[in-house]
Amino acid sequence: MVESDGNVFEAVFNPKSVAVVGASSNIRKGGHRRFVAILENYKGNLYPVNPKEVEVAGIKAYPNVNDIPEDLDHVVVSIPSGGVSKVMEDCVKKGVKIVTVFSSGFSESGQDGKRLEEKIVNIAHSGNTRVVGPNCIGVYCPSSGLSFFPTLPKEEGDVAFVSQSGGLAMAFVQTGSLYGLGFSKVVSFGNAADLDSTDYFEYLADDQKTSIVAAYIEGVKDGMRFKEVVSELVKKKPLIVWKVGRTKIGARAISSHTGSLAGEDRIWDGLFRQLGVVRVNTFDELIDTIMLFKYTPSTGSNVAIITIGGGAGVATADICAGLGLKIPGLGPETSEELKKIVPGVGTSIKNPVDLAATALNPSAVKKVIEIVAKDESIDTLMILGLPEVTMSLFVRELKKFNNSKKSLVVIVPITSETSVKVHRTLSKNGIPVYPSEERAAKAISNVVRFNRYRVFQKDI
Amino acid sequence: MVESDGNVFEAVFNPKSVAVVGASSNIRKGGHRRFVAILENYKGNLYPVNPKEVEVAGIKAYPNVNDIPEDLDHVVVSIPSGGVSKVMEDCVKKGVKIVTVFSSGFSESGQDGKRLEEKIVNIAHSGNTRVVGPNCIGVYCPSSGLSFFPTLPKEEGDVAFVSQSGGLAMAFVQTGSLYGLGFSKVVSFGNAADLDSTDYFEYLADDQKTSIVAAYIEGVKDGMRFKEVVSELVKKKPLIVWKVGRTKIGARAISSHTGSLAGEDRIWDGLFRQLGVVRVNTFDELIDTIMLFKYTPSTGSNVAIITIGGGAGVATADICAGLGLKIPGLGPETSEELKKIVPGVGTSIKNPVDLAATALNPSAVKKVIEIVAKDESIDTLMILGLPEVTMSLFVRELKKFNNSKKSLVVIVPITSETSVKVHRTLSKNGIPVYPSEERAAKAISNVVRFNRYRVFQKDI
Repeated sequence: MVESDGNVFEAVFNPKSVAVVGASSNIRKGGHRRFVAILENYKGNLYPVNPKEVEVAGIKAYPNVNDIPEDLDHVVVSIPSGGVSKVMEDCVKKGVKIVTVFSSGFSESGQDGKRLEEKIVNIAHSGNTRVVGPNCIGVYCPSSGLSFFPTLPKEEGDVAFVSQSGGLAMAFVQTGSLYGLGFSKVVSFGNAADLDSTDYFEYLADDQKTSIVAAYIEGVKDGMRFKEVVSELVKKKPLIVWKVGRTKIGARAISSHTGSLAGEDRIWDGLFRQLGVVRVNTFDELIDTIMLFKYTPSTGSNVAIITIGGGAGVATADICAGLGLKIPGLGPETSEELKKIVPGVGTSIKNPVDLAATALNPSAVKKVIEIVAKDESIDTLMILGLPEVTMSLFVRELKKFNNSKKSLVVIVPITSETSVKVHRTLSKNGIPVYPSEERAAKAISNVVRFNRYRVFQKDI
Repeated sequence: MVESDGNVFEAVFNPKSVAVVGASSNIRKGGHRRFVAILENYKGNLYPVNPKEVEVAGIKAYPNVNDIPEDLDHVVVSIPSGGVSKVMEDCVKKGVKIVTVFSSGFSESGQDGKRLEEKIVNIAHSGNTRVVGPNCIGVYCPSSGLSFFPTLPKEEGDVAFVSQSGGLAMAFVQTGSLYGLGFSKVVSFGNAADLDSTDYFEYLADDQKTSIVAAYIEGVKDGMRFKEVVSELVKKKPLIVWKVGRTKIGARAISSHTGSLAGEDRIWDGLFRQLGVVRVNTFDELIDTIMLFKYTPSTGSNVAIITIGGGAGVATADICAGLGLKIPGLGPETSEELKKIVPGVGTSIKNPVDLAATALNPSAVKKVIEIVAKDESIDTLMILGLPEVTMSLFVRELKKFNNSKKSLVVIVPITSETSVKVHRTLSKNGIPVYPSEERAAKAISNVVRFNRYRVFQKDI
């Protein structure tokens, strides 16, 4: 395998110049969508390449990459698979560093496609060209303006996402933005014919702009190297991996998606555990966990549940305990102080703390939070069942609070358009907010496990 | 134990006359809220009882239930626990059939409260009076207009909910309404000092207005009777139970909520399995499962996944298979027909069916659904990843579709206010809609398990 170095990834994410082969004026063609998505925000020089076009979106088109007067860092190919070998030869001749093959019809489609895929990688490696994809949608990187879709946020953030699926890369950016997450580098790498998740991980481990790495993976080419790279990465930042193919049916679906081998799931599970990788099993869990790593990274396992209504408290205690979290009793001083605010009958000042009608009084709720947060046996406060309007009023206090050493998470079920607004307001202010107790508890237990692994590692 | 008969439950849910002891003009008192909640829609005669009031909300108040000239079916008590024994004596004297004790401060608060609770039940049973609660919010029944909150829907439906928690009963009605569920009878029964979940189940088994019974349970008084009653109920309609206290921490929280004994969870789990009860473990799963029982009760285990984007298809196949659902390959005729609509490259016409860009063409999507639905190996279609606008356009078609023998469920992630609207539109039209693949798959697997149990039972 050709060695990858930092420059390769600079060309992946921050290229000085980009050409789109297959760029088209026909809005029904993928090549049109690829071109305009990049055109929207890209800060470098952008060239359409298409022998059938004179210009695309007002920009002069070239029949071949070799007709472009400037050196090219990165070429995006969006033409039927049959034409890709020829384009790859042109790119090698041009000295292009990165070719992102958007086209599908390679190893995911059977043996002929697999041979074609091997051929294009061999052509690339006959020069100094590396390949992203094929069968992918490529890169979204706000700092360079490279993008796979026109309307994604322009603001930079510190979350990287390495995804074998283009659709999920897109959904990740869109949903993540709603929860106040910003992105440093996102790559959809499809069949991973050349650059694999491991290569991206190796780069992101030392990328100063990335604090959290997340991934959607269907299979991995070189297990030993994956293990080495990941164990180094996890020492520097959290890695959250959604590895699919847990079931035979899932593994079969993978082979016709990216042609990957899913591998034995138990082995993956053991490996992730051993390496301190946070494994998640759904899209929601992925977003939920990243949100907590971002907003309250030191979240601990001793949870106080503050709620209105005993049933919700019971159910939440059950869910938390089932995930290995603790619900410690509150200290005598805490109980004494709470008694002054929460009337005894119909409420509980144990943990879960049931506020009952006191929940309708925002200043009392604020005091309860402050009192419980002072309790030494508590790391994390889960607040649920409070009126949405109270939560909105609290944003400033809660925000201040999450700058302290304790963590606070809020649960607001989605029951109306208003709830969606409350979610947006809270999360944009750095307050982790979840639509259900179990999603919050799952995220907490994921972060707790990672922190425990880290402490354990330092002992060695 | 006093025998319960149908008349008792008529007095619980459809009383001809109701008095509220503790009804108050002071809007800060619980007795005020109880009274106005019932006043809003109740169709029978309603009396405030409070020696300190001349009238409440414009209605003449009486100092004692025995001063009311009419017979009373149902009395709601909302005064501090210390005064409840005296009121119970008055009610027995009056011949009241049902007393709902809203007040808390009974067995959930310790030994003294437990004795007080036993005392009020003994007083009730010295006459022909039965008790709902204490420590509960009582009844919501649209057909009589009885309600524990003023703004709940007036329309009747066919879902009953038996809840040991008042807060969850409320949340259930509010969230359920958003998903197009309507309610026949909802009761919050708190500490279950007299009438327990079993009693309500016995009545609801034969209630013609109830097709689906759901419950939130912390503990049960008489396990043997529970078993007998539930095994009869399940022959007639589905029973979905959220039983908490799965963990020691949850069990501890229960004792200070309703004073119930949670019991050994493995025994509960085995019992539910044996009886064909659908056990759920979260609030969302409760709503999700009921929605499917209501809209597509015959849902089968052979699932076709129709999606845009291969990653989402893989992840969904994984989740479905992990829950015991099947993702059968499509028949050769289906594949032939699909080939005409879905271009081969970049899409998959196996199962999961990846529509890729074809998803942007509503009439093509409609055809795909029709073709897949004809496949004999498929029971249930899961549609995900389609543009929200397409889903809204489809309402009429999807509705027609769900009247056929196949089931169709739709996944629309909540990413904006618009998604909430789409959820409301679809579910109000009888199309089960879920915010995530795993929530849909869980609901499908719950309904499939119940249907399998039913078939098995018929063989015996």
